[in-house]
Amino acid sequence: MGRTSTARERLLDSACELLHTRGYTAVGVAEICARAEVKKGSFYHFFASKQVLTLAAVDAYWEDQRTAWTATLTDPADAPLDRLRKLLAAQVEAQRLAKIEGGAVNGCLLGNLALELSGHEPEIQRRLAEIFDEQTTLVAAVLAEAAATGRIPAARAAHGAARAVIAQLEGAVLLAKLADDPAALDGLWPTVEALIG
Amino acid sequence: MGRTSTARERLLDSACELLHTRGYTAVGVAEICARAEVKKGSFYHFFASKQVLTLAAVDAYWEDQRTAWTATLTDPADAPLDRLRKLLAAQVEAQRLAKIEGGAVNGCLLGNLALELSGHEPEIQRRLAEIFDEQTTLVAAVLAEAAATGRIPAARAAHGAARAVIAQLEGAVLLAKLADDPAALDGLWPTVEALIG
Repeated sequence: MGRTSTARERLLDSACELLHTRGYTAVGVAEICARAEVKKGSFYHFFASKQVLTLAAVDAYWEDQRTAWTATLTDPADAPLDRLRKLLAAQVEAQRLAKIEGGAVNGCLLGNLALELSGHEPEIQRRLAEIFDEQTTLVAAVLAEAAATGRIPAARAAHGAARAVIAQLEGAVLLAKLADDPAALDGLWPTVEALIG
Repeated sequence: MGRTSTARERLLDSACELLHTRGYTAVGVAEICARAEVKKGSFYHFFASKQVLTLAAVDAYWEDQRTAWTATLTDPADAPLDRLRKLLAAQVEAQRLAKIEGGAVNGCLLGNLALELSGHEPEIQRRLAEIFDEQTTLVAAVLAEAAATGRIPAARAAHGAARAVIAQLEGAVLLAKLADDPAALDGLWPTVEALIG
């Protein structure tokens, strides 16, 4: 057992990992506590339920990811489309690392939860929808910059095009998880270029 | 209870519906039996386990879908790209109907199971991967026809482009399920046109 002060963090980390690799329904509070080395009694000191923990874990995950997305997509050292290319490359790399380190392509935590929980966990569903909206807004901003410099047609810089880029990423990651092969993502950037170009 | 001769069909239908709306882990054999009005004892006469039933349900579902996909994608009355447009319109219509009749956009049965079970149920995962390969082959054939008549560049008629169309469909359906809004699929055809055009 570690110090109480880190117990909440350990619960969040364990939840993130177990939700990502196994899903929401398949994982119980007891298992999350065991992995976090936190007593089950202490769990309820921090979180009222698995649902509340999941909301906090999703928020913590996206807080990290948002920082990385924003840094990559607003880096003035790169041209707008290079930033988008690097963002997608980082997503592909995450799947490659999951395969090497965890033994399997585990897909996108947010996409996995979106398909599993939509229709059943309205609060989590609402939060995930907000996050995908934020992702869309970040991508739309970089597409607008690319259009302003004439690199892509203005019509491809709309909100709908950014949404289609996110959909392409989620769909491609789904197929890569199913194939358990990160190489299934090799064509992602050329596809997105066709989509916006 | 109906006649024994229809019990297997009822189990398959109930499994398909419950797997689609609720997922694999959340649904048990008892619930499938109750919905099918089949005694639990009889279940094991037909299927050795929930996993075996799921494989049979996925096969039955895709057998129906394959017939529809093939009919639409090879209809000589339509130009190749019109066939692809009609296929995607049918997928969008299915989500619209699910919302009207069942109260929620329930996504793609095969995509839902792919994200939930990959890494945990290797036999189901393998079968789903085969089905997505079949879908890719059917779409690749219609893209090849479109390229042969000069409607799309030859480079966009490769296997990878067909795969990208399937990925866009799955990703867009994921976002529509998350938003619980079939209108989220309104831009699907223009996006796919950009992707292959």
